[in-house]
Amino acid sequence: MSKVLVIGHKNPDTDSIASAITYAYLKQQIGVDAEAVRLGNITKETAYALETFGFEAPRLIEKAAPETSQVILVDHNEKQQSVDDLDDVQVLEVIDHHRIANFQTNDPLYYRAEPVGCTATILNKLFKEHGVEIPKNIAGLMLSAIVSDSLLFKSPTFTDQDQAAAEELAAIAEVDAAVYGLDMLKAGADLSSVSVKDLANLDSKEFIFGDVKMVIAQVNAVDLQDILGRQDELEAELNNVIKQKELDLFLFVVTDIINSDSVIIALGKEAERAGSAFNVAFNNNTALLKGIVSRKKQIVPVLTEALS
Amino acid sequence: MSKVLVIGHKNPDTDSIASAITYAYLKQQIGVDAEAVRLGNITKETAYALETFGFEAPRLIEKAAPETSQVILVDHNEKQQSVDDLDDVQVLEVIDHHRIANFQTNDPLYYRAEPVGCTATILNKLFKEHGVEIPKNIAGLMLSAIVSDSLLFKSPTFTDQDQAAAEELAAIAEVDAAVYGLDMLKAGADLSSVSVKDLANLDSKEFIFGDVKMVIAQVNAVDLQDILGRQDELEAELNNVIKQKELDLFLFVVTDIINSDSVIIALGKEAERAGSAFNVAFNNNTALLKGIVSRKKQIVPVLTEALS
Repeated sequence: MSKVLVIGHKNPDTDSIASAITYAYLKQQIGVDAEAVRLGNITKETAYALETFGFEAPRLIEKAAPETSQVILVDHNEKQQSVDDLDDVQVLEVIDHHRIANFQTNDPLYYRAEPVGCTATILNKLFKEHGVEIPKNIAGLMLSAIVSDSLLFKSPTFTDQDQAAAEELAAIAEVDAAVYGLDMLKAGADLSSVSVKDLANLDSKEFIFGDVKMVIAQVNAVDLQDILGRQDELEAELNNVIKQKELDLFLFVVTDIINSDSVIIALGKEAERAGSAFNVAFNNNTALLKGIVSRKKQIVPVLTEALS
Repeated sequence: MSKVLVIGHKNPDTDSIASAITYAYLKQQIGVDAEAVRLGNITKETAYALETFGFEAPRLIEKAAPETSQVILVDHNEKQQSVDDLDDVQVLEVIDHHRIANFQTNDPLYYRAEPVGCTATILNKLFKEHGVEIPKNIAGLMLSAIVSDSLLFKSPTFTDQDQAAAEELAAIAEVDAAVYGLDMLKAGADLSSVSVKDLANLDSKEFIFGDVKMVIAQVNAVDLQDILGRQDELEAELNNVIKQKELDLFLFVVTDIINSDSVIIALGKEAERAGSAFNVAFNNNTALLKGIVSRKKQIVPVLTEALS
């Protein structure tokens, strides 16, 4: 059997990278020749986590075949978020915490999704189910994923199960979750030196709701002016992406990790419908979404309902 | 919160009925107001299992709403195999052992699929994960599901995990799996008194492969002549279904549970393509598929490949 590649989503966030490394490790322990790979650049936040716990970034790939015929997806399932040649390989397993959409297989598979805040929380259970111990540095990486997905335990996606996993993992990793977590988020949220091209792409995911093709990109910021101070330049870049990908809507979400709100920039011919969906009026293409920090739980369901 | 309905697929087999009853029981033990329901008639085999272990058949429903807004699917996920108003309710969970197709949600959910031979094998794990004991009569029902899906442990879908579960469940149920299992299969395989209308519908599932809309129905028989002796009458009924459902293909699979082979009857304008897919020539619309007993593992993948 050829090597099985463990793949997180495009524009990988910390959960996608950490979960790929973690699950590849677990599979190796139970005798599977697995390798973690990635589909895009590492963020500053993820780089901070990898460096803290002594990991290299996984190998960057563009296609899964022909080097393998079998993949495992972590932290995603939607085809457009996955490796480009997904249809040419067999998906052996999926470990995820998102809705299921645009996903289809020919054969039965192992699919483990749970409505929790982070893939790493599910992986924490899988280690127990397989009776494999979590090494200290892997635990640190898994904790980083939970901190990242929950914005330091504040997102509405954060569940009791994530809380329990975070406590267990912090103990194994021997770190203070609150102190380490804030340091990691701050490392990722310093966007002053990130180019608008990179901002547009950093954590951007494509969605299809009804007949609306859109991208929702999200960045975390400590200082919103890092982004909004460059709005004109950023909008030009977002409009480029809209043209290039033939999008109906680009929603750029700037999440204030201190106050737990988000400012959105909406562009494209369906922008007004995004405003109606959230019941906000745009001022210079921007609007404040009070208390909204989660793309998955607070943005995607609202748009699914409004646009599908 | 309103009651959660636990639903197996249309034309329910023993696994769909047993798993609905079993999982509803498990959910009740962990504080969820759950009720098992069914989407169609009980087969003779299932009736035998229910009677042996002292269960009533679950309540028959046609729609999930408005009595509930939340459902759990067991033993299936494809929309066309599920309750007609699936789009109007929220799927909270899926416990399944089939491929994933024609399935989509707006929200994250608990999805547990494993490439094993029977949903009951997965449920056996879930009891352990929740620390709930399996009562004797539920264990008997779960064992019945494994016997049914594996044709008494002979199907290629039957895995080591199913084997282990069957042994555990037989011990709890205090039955001899081989003796009880054969009795149950025989009770279900006596098709001499079943009308052709019921035969066509007994365990029939709709599939869409590429642009081919088809039904694959499967019956287990001890004596193939129970079916093939009435071929003309049966074909007339299958042709009715083809017309009514606008099918391109109807594959009627008669599985010989003693010899572990199947005879297929193929009707519809794409019948020849089914013959090519299995590399057999039809004689009077029938062909023998040597060693083929599993729709899921030996028929669906071949047709997916050939027709998609």
